[in-house]
Amino acid sequence: MTRKIAVCRREHFNAAHRLHNHLLSAAENEQLYGKCNRPNYHGHNYELTVKVTGEIDARTGYVLDTKQLSETIKEHVLDKLDHNNLNLDVPELQGINPTTENLAIAIYNMLRPQIKEPQDLKIILYETERNFVEYPA
Amino acid sequence: MTRKIAVCRREHFNAAHRLHNHLLSAAENEQLYGKCNRPNYHGHNYELTVKVTGEIDARTGYVLDTKQLSETIKEHVLDKLDHNNLNLDVPELQGINPTTENLAIAIYNMLRPQIKEPQDLKIILYETERNFVEYPA
Amino acid sequence: MTRKIAVCRREHFNAAHRLHNHLLSAAENEQLYGKCNRPNYHGHNYELTVKVTGEIDARTGYVLDTKQLSETIKEHVLDKLDHNNLNLDVPELQGINPTTENLAIAIYNMLRPQIKEPQDLKIILYETERNFVEYPA
Amino acid sequence: MTRKIAVCRREHFNAAHRLHNHLLSAAENEQLYGKCNRPNYHGHNYELTVKVTGEIDARTGYVLDTKQLSETIKEHVLDKLDHNNLNLDVPELQGINPTTENLAIAIYNMLRPQIKEPQDLKIILYETERNFVEYPA
Amino acid sequence: MTRKIAVCRREHFNAAHRLHNHLLSAAENEQLYGKCNRPNYHGHNYELTVKVTGEIDARTGYVLDTKQLSETIKEHVLDKLDHNNLNLDVPELQGINPTTENLAIAIYNMLRPQIKEPQDLKIILYETERNFVEYPA
Amino acid sequence: MTRKIAVCRREHFNAAHRLHNHLLSAAENEQLYGKCNRPNYHGHNYELTVKVTGEIDARTGYVLDTKQLSETIKEHVLDKLDHNNLNLDVPELQGINPTTENLAIAIYNMLRPQIKEPQDLKIILYETERNFVEYPA
Repeated sequence: MTRKIAVCRREHFNAAHRLHNHLLSAAENEQLYGKCNRPNYHGHNYELTVKVTGEIDARTGYVLDTKQLSETIKEHVLDKLDHNNLNLDVPELQGINPTTENLAIAIYNMLRPQIKEPQDLKIILYETERNFVEYPA
Repeated sequence: MTRKIAVCRREHFNAAHRLHNHLLSAAENEQLYGKCNRPNYHGHNYELTVKVTGEIDARTGYVLDTKQLSETIKEHVLDKLDHNNLNLDVPELQGINPTTENLAIAIYNMLRPQIKEPQDLKIILYETERNFVEYPA
Repeated sequence: MTRKIAVCRREHFNAAHRLHNHLLSAAENEQLYGKCNRPNYHGHNYELTVKVTGEIDARTGYVLDTKQLSETIKEHVLDKLDHNNLNLDVPELQGINPTTENLAIAIYNMLRPQIKEPQDLKIILYETERNFVEYPA
Repeated sequence: MTRKIAVCRREHFNAAHRLHNHLLSAAENEQLYGKCNRPNYHGHNYELTVKVTGEIDARTGYVLDTKQLSETIKEHVLDKLDHNNLNLDVPELQGINPTTENLAIAIYNMLRPQIKEPQDLKIILYETERNFVEYPA
Repeated sequence: MTRKIAVCRREHFNAAHRLHNHLLSAAENEQLYGKCNRPNYHGHNYELTVKVTGEIDARTGYVLDTKQLSETIKEHVLDKLDHNNLNLDVPELQGINPTTENLAIAIYNMLRPQIKEPQDLKIILYETERNFVEYPA
Repeated sequence: MTRKIAVCRREHFNAAHRLHNHLLSAAENEQLYGKCNRPNYHGHNYELTVKVTGEIDARTGYVLDTKQLSETIKEHVLDKLDHNNLNLDVPELQGINPTTENLAIAIYNMLRPQIKEPQDLKIILYETERNFVEYPA
């Protein structure tokens, strides 16, 4: 059987952020982002699902070991983001406005080198129970 | 980065309905739909996810503003369906048998004109925790 | 060990209703209940938890068999309420305004004769994810 | 029927915070709170359930109107906490270390004057899916 | 309207299993699977979503009747897997190492003959809240 | 403020079991427990909430540190139960029929010596989403 199967691992992290585009004025930022632009930050319990698609390894019965995937996510994503401020504390996010869209792409870029080609990678990131993104679509 | 990203917003509404095809006899309706055909209606807490796929606007960091998307859904969907009877109260559903499939397509048609081309639109609609549809598939 | 333990079983049903006190005028009802008073009904996926507290039977290791409890709930509650209209179809609710409070008490009264004394009974009833009641408190 | 019934309303807010006791040294704070003490804050999606226990008003069929309760929570709690920094932005929390315990008590104190005696009030506050408190116990 | 729509039904079953490749040594199995390889089994509450994609039948307003789909899943999947040991009790799994990947494919093969061509079939299988697979991807 | 507050920590473990009273005949066991008595075991994702009630420590703002509570639960409960067979692998459960009731009491007894008097301890244990117990009630 050579059809592909997707394996998903859900993790979470807690972080502070504010939405702010430093190329715009304070008034423009306030108009665009409202209370998400407040200067002293707010925060979220982010729920992150990492989806890897590939073929099953006949020896292990796995596409990949989700325990190892969990450790990879911890090392390359959670240790950088969890209990930190996304505007101030994360080198990979310097100069990036931490919308859910931009954050999902940054997480994709942190993980893509860790996932073996030709396996596909997709990020699903919930900022709240009611707002989430998928990248790539 | 020009790859597409999907942004999702989850909303909910509460409505009454019954399943009934007015082209069929009472016996045929009862046979097809069982207790979902009972004359005095039953109802659901519908959970609706609206998924919009497109490119990120570099100025905002958004595909679209989920707060505006939420208001669009409220104006064009929830104000019509919430706390109403799907068989009796909704002009857009006149003559339509309110199965989850037909309801999802009706919601798609309510929202499609509000979402800017070439952004894609998808509707995920839960009638119960255990029954849901996705349109288009 | 003679300390008491509580055993809980969660079930669900889907029903239509409207809030309406027939002793009040149409204007008073509309003022009190707003869109919950609309004439053609709306509906909910009710989530019901039935909690029975007592001592463990040493022979079975159960306070009571949750499979039997589930069948009791089906016979005495769900078969009456599920896929029905709470204002029109349920003899036990005739003349009762189906608020979540009144509905929980009616369910308690349907089940209390089925639960052996001196076991205690409590009803937890969710009308939506965000509104629920517990009876007795 | 004069037995009491509890009515619950669930709301949510997003806020930044850090755990820090200003009477202790930096080393003691770091030892006590670990990554929860990091200087640039982190944040959470707090889930708040407000539980009011009392008797049913025969006229309305309600203990209290959950729509009005929701507005009361918005005015007296969410407008103060949501999208803010719990260490910096909230007058009611000045000088208070924002552990979940202390935050739940502060919310209780914000709401207690708004709930009519002799109705009882209880706060259930989730900081994450896996950590939550109930006050009073 | 001839665009396709997906209809999903969620079911669950409880089963015991251990991960073990009988072609490998005990040491290799222990190294590969860790505590998932323990000899006396452990178990899971599996959550299964069956997704069928096709066109709506104009007469019924359904792609397929989810009540019939539920009965098909019960007969062809749950009656074989629920409250059983996946390593010992299921003829369709003889010689198969019951990883989530292999189990999802086995469920697909149990159901594919029951779903009418040209309808598509997809299996989403949660082993835990944090580990799940989709087949085909 | 000396009123008590409850602090809760949710954990999970995956285990195999069968219901069986060794003092009864095979026929009596089969009659009592049905498919839960099958000889080769089945299993569950148990969700465990540990609730500790006491006063807040003014220095820490905690009733107790949920990170330490999580480690205590891991050492005294999860390391014994997780990925094991409750009938065969757990010394504390020898001779005990692993119903949810009996399992909750066993977990209480594992943890009670670890929680400082006069703090109260309560165990909430979900065997499935729809069956759970609370001890003491």
